[in-house]
Amino acid sequence: MKPEFLDLIRSRNPLIHNITNLVSAHFSANGLLALGASPIMADSPEEMAELASISNAVVLNLGTPNPNNLNAMIAAGKAANQAGIPVVLDPVAVAASRLRRDAAMRLLKEIDITAIRGNAGEIAYLADTDWQAKGVDAGEGHADLQHVAEQAARKHKCFIVLSGEKDYISDGKRTAVAANGTPLLPKITASGCLLSTVCGAFLAVSPKEKGLDALTEACTVYAVAGEIAAQGLQPTQSGSFMVRFLDALAAVDHTAVAQAANVVWHQAA
Amino acid sequence: MKPEFLDLIRSRNPLIHNITNLVSAHFSANGLLALGASPIMADSPEEMAELASISNAVVLNLGTPNPNNLNAMIAAGKAANQAGIPVVLDPVAVAASRLRRDAAMRLLKEIDITAIRGNAGEIAYLADTDWQAKGVDAGEGHADLQHVAEQAARKHKCFIVLSGEKDYISDGKRTAVAANGTPLLPKITASGCLLSTVCGAFLAVSPKEKGLDALTEACTVYAVAGEIAAQGLQPTQSGSFMVRFLDALAAVDHTAVAQAANVVWHQAA
Amino acid sequence: MKPEFLDLIRSRNPLIHNITNLVSAHFSANGLLALGASPIMADSPEEMAELASISNAVVLNLGTPNPNNLNAMIAAGKAANQAGIPVVLDPVAVAASRLRRDAAMRLLKEIDITAIRGNAGEIAYLADTDWQAKGVDAGEGHADLQHVAEQAARKHKCFIVLSGEKDYISDGKRTAVAANGTPLLPKITASGCLLSTVCGAFLAVSPKEKGLDALTEACTVYAVAGEIAAQGLQPTQSGSFMVRFLDALAAVDHTAVAQAANVVWHQAA
Repeated sequence: MKPEFLDLIRSRNPLIHNITNLVSAHFSANGLLALGASPIMADSPEEMAELASISNAVVLNLGTPNPNNLNAMIAAGKAANQAGIPVVLDPVAVAASRLRRDAAMRLLKEIDITAIRGNAGEIAYLADTDWQAKGVDAGEGHADLQHVAEQAARKHKCFIVLSGEKDYISDGKRTAVAANGTPLLPKITASGCLLSTVCGAFLAVSPKEKGLDALTEACTVYAVAGEIAAQGLQPTQSGSFMVRFLDALAAVDHTAVAQAANVVWHQAA
Repeated sequence: MKPEFLDLIRSRNPLIHNITNLVSAHFSANGLLALGASPIMADSPEEMAELASISNAVVLNLGTPNPNNLNAMIAAGKAANQAGIPVVLDPVAVAASRLRRDAAMRLLKEIDITAIRGNAGEIAYLADTDWQAKGVDAGEGHADLQHVAEQAARKHKCFIVLSGEKDYISDGKRTAVAANGTPLLPKITASGCLLSTVCGAFLAVSPKEKGLDALTEACTVYAVAGEIAAQGLQPTQSGSFMVRFLDALAAVDHTAVAQAANVVWHQAA
Repeated sequence: MKPEFLDLIRSRNPLIHNITNLVSAHFSANGLLALGASPIMADSPEEMAELASISNAVVLNLGTPNPNNLNAMIAAGKAANQAGIPVVLDPVAVAASRLRRDAAMRLLKEIDITAIRGNAGEIAYLADTDWQAKGVDAGEGHADLQHVAEQAARKHKCFIVLSGEKDYISDGKRTAVAANGTPLLPKITASGCLLSTVCGAFLAVSPKEKGLDALTEACTVYAVAGEIAAQGLQPTQSGSFMVRFLDALAAVDHTAVAQAANVVWHQAA
């Protein structure tokens, strides 16, 4: 892989508007800054249109859904659609409650979502597959997760980023399987939330027809930064890893990414 | 002390549902992950029953009380009672305002609380003693704080974890005085909030009749992790300590805890 | 510069009440604790008067404005005015939306604000100058920013802290230009928010007539702590810097500040 978009993030500093949860807000903002983007977090429906006019992407995170932030997400998503900027949805724990299922469905219905970033269980729920019944940790083969990503992409007519030990990035026809990373990443809270907003930053600097490449690069840059940060750490050192990961998001460059990248492309069956 | 429950947390990964404040959410989630538990933070009353059905404990934190999160706490607490899972209350600054006093009283009246974790001033208020009038830092002897913990336990018919330089863990009849720790712990914000949710994790994996032992182990594991993290640090290095403390929560094992534990049991007078 | 107030913060531990946003809450609380002050974050209008009676300063942060926290800010500001304690306003991104402009104007109208802390763009908007049209990064000379700070101070009849590569602290007649700091500070999110609440801590321990000196010392202590924390770090190490900055806020003393301080005073033209 030859990174095309990382340097653009650093030269253009895209402004990423996040409606997110109280767990991930600080870490996500620091991660965007480290990468080279700029964060803004705001959740009043009244200012969504104005913020969309100065932002380069919008990221909607369902971590702590409630009627207030759902209204803000709808307003922000519509404003982003009007402004022609990408919208990323992070359907946190979507299968865990009716509130989350309804919120995700409403967002997918009323907003033109560019990409959904979630873990296997979340994407499987959105793909409407029976995968989840077997459990996220049940040892399914890669083919299954690739299929889940493709199915979700076709059903919701958007890019899917199914992240985990391997990431599956799909538009329903082509799927990249990106296999970088470290077991320390899932040990820090909000590492998925930050990946979602990093996806927003990469979409913000890429042309529409290159979205699948941009998201694949986002996952790879993120996972390679994780590998760099994990060097020399014990598996228990999640605190130290969190700090070094912010350092690595700023230090990782296209040479390191090109060298370490482990990406394989597949055509849908 | 022979730790019985730390390994169970790591093998079972209990899901701890927190309704908490915007200061402690990120740190509490990372601390639970480091320890071996899983966090979920959510505050919409509509989803409380569903989340209780997949959670192993609920922790209610009054750090930033308002009508919205109070309703969520009531709903979550009742759902937890119905599901038969433990409920921990953290009455942050309960004596500081009528809003906090009323919120704590309503929660204690409407919900079957398993344990209350607070500092000396907070527990003294709930014990209805005249202790607080003398001030938290006024150099009271241990007998006084032990009495405060016992009185609060008897009054509210639940376990009390009165944490500070020494921790007093009581069911009203027996009280453990746990004397591990480091002066760096109170220098990081939300260290009390995280202890409350760690108490939830220990209750989640222990049988009901072992609750007092589980909470005593929670305090001791927490304080011994603090001692490990503080090694070699200056008293001013609270930033470094915060990071190392997360590392230590993951690294601390039952051998280290058994070796370092300083716990003395007392019968109520 | 001979620091007068840093040691007072450490001996008196002033309680600083913050109504702030979900990005900065954890970092601001830890920064206040490191410095030697105590944080409280609360946002229910019902408890504002009681909290003002035990607090030593109030800091209002417009990072994520909404009708709820705006009402809390009005209540907290009025209670602080009645209690005679200082009020700091942080008008985050005030020019970015009508909601923010209206919120700032309402706070400035209904509350007696002691000091406003913002970046060049925010203060320029409040100064009603045409400066912002030229852009924050357009290479304006120091005279311009000094003028912006003076104009805002005169217009709003309060102290202005315009922070950036250099800080301009003004009462409209005299202006201190404080030139310490490190490029790593703006790379960590909420570094401006924390400076605002640090300004609150310095105002909390200084007599009214010494406010300009206290705020200048606040900016200098903060920036010198940044210089200490940045020693030996690469420009990419924002994660490590964040941790070390908390350590440095606790370690920095009046000798280090006196030695490193780079402050020049100007009279308004």
